[in-house]
Amino acid sequence: MAAEPNCVFCKIVAGEIPSATVLRTEACQAFLDIGPLSEGHLLVIPVKHYTRMEDMPPEELAQLSRELPGLGRALVEVTGAAGYNLLQNNGSAAGQEVTHVHFHLIPRSTGDGLGYRWRPQAYPEGRADQILARYRDVLAG
Amino acid sequence: MAAEPNCVFCKIVAGEIPSATVLRTEACQAFLDIGPLSEGHLLVIPVKHYTRMEDMPPEELAQLSRELPGLGRALVEVTGAAGYNLLQNNGSAAGQEVTHVHFHLIPRSTGDGLGYRWRPQAYPEGRADQILARYRDVLAG
Repeated sequence: MAAEPNCVFCKIVAGEIPSATVLRTEACQAFLDIGPLSEGHLLVIPVKHYTRMEDMPPEELAQLSRELPGLGRALVEVTGAAGYNLLQNNGSAAGQEVTHVHFHLIPRSTGDGLGYRWRPQAYPEGRADQILARYRDVLAG
Repeated sequence: MAAEPNCVFCKIVAGEIPSATVLRTEACQAFLDIGPLSEGHLLVIPVKHYTRMEDMPPEELAQLSRELPGLGRALVEVTGAAGYNLLQNNGSAAGQEVTHVHFHLIPRSTGDGLGYRWRPQAYPEGRADQILARYRDVLAG
């Protein structure tokens, strides 16, 4: 897929916008988020432009993903963080701002005030079975 | 890596605890979260027990990741969600509760009140360069 002319991440890949790049492979590029949620916050993007994760060919996502364990290990070593989140947003409803797939690696420490707003619910009787059946249908199709 | 005797996700993999499984491959299993943040919230886990993402062999994470685009597409079709988040937490400081790697796929709609608490900062002069240099050292080592 060609670079999108107005995509800031395509411009980073092309070197037209500078970035603090920590890793570049054939498939992906990892660099410091310039508006970090915490020190050492990384973004990992595919070199090719895709808007959302489900648009990516599985093999290209697999290639990018091979780098994630090593990047997670480096993040822990560099920042000393007790933990980290991998977060990837699809669609503006999910908080996606740049429409080029990107994975956040966010260093976390206890009580840092970051994290997901977590409000678990329960399925009404029978509803989970309905949804399960729909998933199986769709995935089998 | 062998199953961990007290791990609820290893028991799901082994079939000792029932689950609403939507997909099972050699490498991974995807099932409905029983405490969903929204209808159709999925968990995707490696079949083998690893505590954190950086513990996973890159090839095993790649195998799991190959399923994610199709699962994302199915989630959108089943739930009609405008978007979704992929979220994976490493360490209790990052909100990890079950110590078996798991990826959340969380359906999102505009104004649903979910999402990440997002407080971007800026690096003080020179600090980003220091962190960049550290990452490059660690990743080159």
